[in-house]
Amino acid sequence: MSLANGAPSFAELRTGIELALSGFLADQRTQLAEIGTELDPVSTSLTDYVLNGGKRLRPLFAYWGFRGAGGKADAAIIRACASLELIQACALIHDDVMDGSDTRRGFPAIHKRFATLHRDQGLSGASESFGISAAILLGDLALVWADKMFHTSTIESDALVRALPVLDEMRTEIMAGQYLDVLEQALASQSVERSLRVARLKSAKYTVERPLHLGAALAGADAPLFNSYSRYGMPLGEAFQLRDDILGVFGDPEETGKPAGDDLREGKRTVLIAAALERANGTQAAFIEQHLGRSTLGISDVINMREIIMETGAVGVVETMIEGGLASALNALEDSSIEPTARERLAELALAATRRRL
Amino acid sequence: MSLANGAPSFAELRTGIELALSGFLADQRTQLAEIGTELDPVSTSLTDYVLNGGKRLRPLFAYWGFRGAGGKADAAIIRACASLELIQACALIHDDVMDGSDTRRGFPAIHKRFATLHRDQGLSGASESFGISAAILLGDLALVWADKMFHTSTIESDALVRALPVLDEMRTEIMAGQYLDVLEQALASQSVERSLRVARLKSAKYTVERPLHLGAALAGADAPLFNSYSRYGMPLGEAFQLRDDILGVFGDPEETGKPAGDDLREGKRTVLIAAALERANGTQAAFIEQHLGRSTLGISDVINMREIIMETGAVGVVETMIEGGLASALNALEDSSIEPTARERLAELALAATRRRL
Repeated sequence: MSLANGAPSFAELRTGIELALSGFLADQRTQLAEIGTELDPVSTSLTDYVLNGGKRLRPLFAYWGFRGAGGKADAAIIRACASLELIQACALIHDDVMDGSDTRRGFPAIHKRFATLHRDQGLSGASESFGISAAILLGDLALVWADKMFHTSTIESDALVRALPVLDEMRTEIMAGQYLDVLEQALASQSVERSLRVARLKSAKYTVERPLHLGAALAGADAPLFNSYSRYGMPLGEAFQLRDDILGVFGDPEETGKPAGDDLREGKRTVLIAAALERANGTQAAFIEQHLGRSTLGISDVINMREIIMETGAVGVVETMIEGGLASALNALEDSSIEPTARERLAELALAATRRRL
Repeated sequence: MSLANGAPSFAELRTGIELALSGFLADQRTQLAEIGTELDPVSTSLTDYVLNGGKRLRPLFAYWGFRGAGGKADAAIIRACASLELIQACALIHDDVMDGSDTRRGFPAIHKRFATLHRDQGLSGASESFGISAAILLGDLALVWADKMFHTSTIESDALVRALPVLDEMRTEIMAGQYLDVLEQALASQSVERSLRVARLKSAKYTVERPLHLGAALAGADAPLFNSYSRYGMPLGEAFQLRDDILGVFGDPEETGKPAGDDLREGKRTVLIAAALERANGTQAAFIEQHLGRSTLGISDVINMREIIMETGAVGVVETMIEGGLASALNALEDSSIEPTARERLAELALAATRRRL
C-alpha cells in the first residue's frame, strides 16, 4: 500500500482512511441486513454520516504518531487509526441530540433524518421522539463499531493490547469533557480558566494528544516519546479549539458549514466568550448575556455581538493564546527522537489546524 | 478466592461480582475527581445505579460458561464477567431516556436524577434537557467503562484477544435489538414472529447466549461447546423474555419493582400482546389497541386489560412456549462436554430465570 510508508500527503491519507471506513461499514451493513432489512436505514445513515466530510484529524494524528515512533505502517494500521472516526461519529450524533442541532456538515442530523423517516412512513407515535431514540442508538452503535473496527483491523495482538488503555482513557476523557461542557453552559460560566479546562479535555486530549499516544502505543514507543507528544499535543489542541471558538462567532458559513454566529445562538461558553465577558464594561456584558444562547438570534444581532466582542479586545487575546500554543507545539517537535518525516508532517498539521486551512 | 472454583452459590457469586464492580467504580471515581470535582455526581450516580440491585444474570452466565468449558476461575475472571453489568447499565440508562421512564428499580432514572440536580442548584436552561443530556453521556461512559473494566481485569492477553470479538457481536446485537424494539412500537406491530425476533436479539443472544460464549472464549473452548451453549441459551433466553412479558402485565409491583401493568402503559409490543391480538375478537382487539400505550392508564384499566388478555388464551400460549423453551435448554445441557458442576448450575439458572425466583 503506497500510503503505508514514504511521505503520503494529507489528502492521500484521508482517501486511505475513507476507503478503510467505507469497507468496514459495508461489511457491517451486510451483517445488519442479515438480522433484518429494517436495519438498512441504520447502516445507511451511519455510513453517510461518517463518509460525508470531516477533516479526519484524529486518524491523521494517530498515523503520524505511529510513524513518528518509527512504526512501519500498513493497511492494518490505517484501519486501526481510521476507527477513531467512529468514536467521533458517536460524539457528534449524541451532541446534536443534546444541542438540538438540526444539521451537521450541511446535512440533516441523525435525529432529524429518523424523524423524517418516521413521518414519511406514517409510523405511530411522535416523530421527534422516534428520531431521538434512533440517534441515541446509532451513537451507541458507532461507539461499539469503533471498537470492532479497531479489534478487527488485523494489527498484531501485542500492539492491540498495548493500545487498549489509551483508547479507554481517551473515551473516558471525551465523555467527561462533554459533561463538563453541558454543565458549563448550565452554570452560564464566565471563567476563562474553566472554559480552558473543557477545551483541554475535548480538544487537546481527545483530538490531538490521545490519538498521538495511540499511534505511539501501536508502535511500542517508550515514555519519552509519549511525553514529547503531550508537550506538542496539549498546547496545539488548545490552540485548535480556540481557533474553533473564533470561527464559531466570526466564521464564514461557506467555510464552517454552519450558520453565521452559530456558537452565539447555542450559547456556547467558549474561552472567547469568557474573555469577552471578563473584559466587557457593564453595557457590553449586559448585551452579551442578553443575547447569548437565544435561538432566535438574527444576522443583525450576530453582527452586533461580533462588534462588541471585538471591542472588548477578546479576539486579540485569543489570537495571542493561539500563537503561543502553536509556538509551544512546534518547540516540542524539536525532540530529536521523532522520526524526521513525521516531525515535518506534524509541524504542517499544527499550522494547518490552527490557521484552519486544513 | 473462594468464589473462584468449587461450587459457589448464586448469592456468593453475586457478592463477588458486586465487590468487583464497586472496586472498579471507586477507582474511576477517583480518576474523574482528578479531572474536576464537578464530575462527582457523574461517578456517584453511575455507582449507585450499577450497585442498586439487579440479578447479575449476564455475569453469572459468563462465569458458568467459563467454568463449563473447564476454566479455572480467579478474581480476574470475576472482574471480566462483572464488566457486562456496565454494558447493561448503558442499555438501561439510554432505554429510560427513550421510554421517558422516571424510575428504575424503585429509584429515579438517571435523567430524572440530573434534572433534579439542575433544579436544586438553580442552574440555567431547562432542567429536563440537562437531565437527558447527562443521561446520554452517563450511558456512553458506562459503555466505555465496561470496556475498561474488561481490559484491566488482568485476565491474560490471549484470553482478552479471544474474547473481544464476542463482546463486539454482543454489543452490536443489543443495539440492533433496541432499534428494532423502538421500530416495532412505532409500527404498532402485532406479529408474534416479529416480536420474537426482538426477544431473540435483546434477551436470548444478549442476556444468555453471548455471555456464555464470552465465558467459553475466555476459557479457550472449541466450536462444539459454543454450539451447545447456543442450543441452551437461545431457547432459554426467549423463555426468559416471555416470562418478563407476562410479569410486565400481571406482575406484582413488590416483586417487579415497577408499577402494575407498566408494559401496557409503555405500549410494549411483546409476544404476549401479539398473541393476544392474533387471538382476539373484534371487540377485544379494539379494547387492547385503544388502551395500549396510554400513559394515563389507571389500575382499573390495567385490570380490564389483564382480563381481556386472559380471555384470548394468550397467557396459556405463552406459558406453553416458556415450557418448551425451558425443555429445549435443559436438553442441550445433556451435552457431555460441559463440566458437571457448571451443568448443574446452568440447569438451576434456567429454572430460576424462567420461573423468576432468582
